[in-house]
Amino acid sequence: MPKAPRIAVTDVTLRDGMHAIRHQFSVDDVRAIAAALDDVGVSHIEVSHGDGLGGSTIQYGFAKENEDDLIRAAREVVRRARLTALLLPGIGIIEDMKRVQKLGVETIRIATHCTEADISEQHMREAKKLGLEVVGFLMMAHMLAPEDLAHQARLMASYGADVVYVVDSAGAMLPEDAYARVKALREALPDTVEVGFHAHHNLGLSIANSFAAVDAGATRIDASLKGLGAGAGNTPLEVFAAAAAKRGLETGLDLYKAMDAAEDVLRPRVPRLVEIDRASLTLGYAGVYSSFLLHAYRAAEQFGVDARDILVELGKKKVVGGQEDMILDVALALKKQKEAAAAR
Amino acid sequence: MPKAPRIAVTDVTLRDGMHAIRHQFSVDDVRAIAAALDDVGVSHIEVSHGDGLGGSTIQYGFAKENEDDLIRAAREVVRRARLTALLLPGIGIIEDMKRVQKLGVETIRIATHCTEADISEQHMREAKKLGLEVVGFLMMAHMLAPEDLAHQARLMASYGADVVYVVDSAGAMLPEDAYARVKALREALPDTVEVGFHAHHNLGLSIANSFAAVDAGATRIDASLKGLGAGAGNTPLEVFAAAAAKRGLETGLDLYKAMDAAEDVLRPRVPRLVEIDRASLTLGYAGVYSSFLLHAYRAAEQFGVDARDILVELGKKKVVGGQEDMILDVALALKKQKEAAAAR
Repeated sequence: MPKAPRIAVTDVTLRDGMHAIRHQFSVDDVRAIAAALDDVGVSHIEVSHGDGLGGSTIQYGFAKENEDDLIRAAREVVRRARLTALLLPGIGIIEDMKRVQKLGVETIRIATHCTEADISEQHMREAKKLGLEVVGFLMMAHMLAPEDLAHQARLMASYGADVVYVVDSAGAMLPEDAYARVKALREALPDTVEVGFHAHHNLGLSIANSFAAVDAGATRIDASLKGLGAGAGNTPLEVFAAAAAKRGLETGLDLYKAMDAAEDVLRPRVPRLVEIDRASLTLGYAGVYSSFLLHAYRAAEQFGVDARDILVELGKKKVVGGQEDMILDVALALKKQKEAAAAR
Repeated sequence: MPKAPRIAVTDVTLRDGMHAIRHQFSVDDVRAIAAALDDVGVSHIEVSHGDGLGGSTIQYGFAKENEDDLIRAAREVVRRARLTALLLPGIGIIEDMKRVQKLGVETIRIATHCTEADISEQHMREAKKLGLEVVGFLMMAHMLAPEDLAHQARLMASYGADVVYVVDSAGAMLPEDAYARVKALREALPDTVEVGFHAHHNLGLSIANSFAAVDAGATRIDASLKGLGAGAGNTPLEVFAAAAAKRGLETGLDLYKAMDAAEDVLRPRVPRLVEIDRASLTLGYAGVYSSFLLHAYRAAEQFGVDARDILVELGKKKVVGGQEDMILDVALALKKQKEAAAAR
């Protein structure tokens, strides 16, 4: 058993959870959920479109309400936790950050693909000047070897990040993968910079991966009520609270309040829960972006191959967002393989 | 990474899964699900009432169909896997075992509370004489220290068990708990006796605990489609197949077929999926029997205390089935504590 550290839990129900309900939380939903979370004892409550500030667009999906109204609703009720927003440079801009700080946001999380920390430089430096707590968010972190990920994290730290997260966007990591990456960051970063871990549950390992991250030195863990989040969802907050208490980890979470928030506050407000279904399991297994899913299904039909084989192949090739044209190449190659096999 | 062992997976969808649908699978359901599972490549398919042979009673819940008809339906379609039945001495009897063997059952799993291996002696010796494969099933295994559990397992081995399972009935184990118990059994048993692990998902750790069990020497793992099972359910077969493949474990499972069986065969046949809700999470956290739940809620109402506090206290006292009268004592003590605290 590791020695009991103090783990700060950032709740993402009102940000990553937005993906699971197509960004349709209302101002009333946000007020009720944020108030309950604040009472549970999470250290940070993130409120944003699933794709961050400025994400409410035809490309990423229109939110039900204006993002400023959602942030104001949370600000009215949050007393203990730090109000947090996510920003993906390119979707959100520096002006968004300034605007939400005036509404009461205290922590900004700046997310980039794991190989592109350098595009966060301007935003981080500006956020530091504004006096915000700055958190770097290295997405799809399973795609980079630990030492390369640590290099990207060092860049973020050099821009002023107070915390850098290893983000398992595709839910593709095993506990040993989470451990190795967090450990590499912990060893590469100065003691003044914390390491965080954001899990997805595609392989059913969100709790175990979060434990592995803590064992490797992470002091920030993301979670959400009922695991509400993109794909198979995130680490379920109430389950993490229970399992962490059993493990002797200090999280500051009130277990019964977390259970009640999940069941009495969140559950009635969502039409369905997240689950590990064929699509999300395939994404975790292949380790690819969820945005590839629909393209892969289309290509599979066109070429008469299994969409899962396409996704697994894309994972092997480490294809990233913007390379969607690769999907047709992969489908065609698989079709040829299949024909060659049939001819033998 | 551990060296790749060969893991045989026993499917319990048609036995533990029965609990989740109040034992209402039809002959047609069993035929369809067993055929799909056989094609997935599981080594054993267990078909029984949730509480084992003879469990269809007013006390344990009446099954939709006669157990012989369900076993016959499975026998018609299962080609590769060993057809398996569960028996709890006291609920099922030796005659049940003989009868189902004639219907084609090849493996019998004999389950006792973890401290009571000795009540399996007659059944195991008789099963061995009949030429059945014999599996011992030590339930609520989190309640015993590893070395004491190993002692019980040695008893089962001495009666002729070919395999002994560590059964986390309440889903109360952390990975380190599963590891320690499987390891103790592996070291205590002769090499000719395999060790198995049966997880429940109450703390969201079924996959991770199964991995820990494999690392400690388990070569038999239980799973079910979509995790269908009592409480928060079992290790989801299709998710285990994917995560195990990523980990380099040889399971003999066809991942795509497992996904398809879960989604196309099982899913349409159940009204709702299992989930980690307040009740099942509390059971896992407290480490108590699900049969205590209703009693605890009643006592909580009567004495004006939180049912969860009752369950946690019962867990600490290691109360077992048959000691339900303890629930009132615990509730009364909690009420007095509460009054004393209020008076201070």
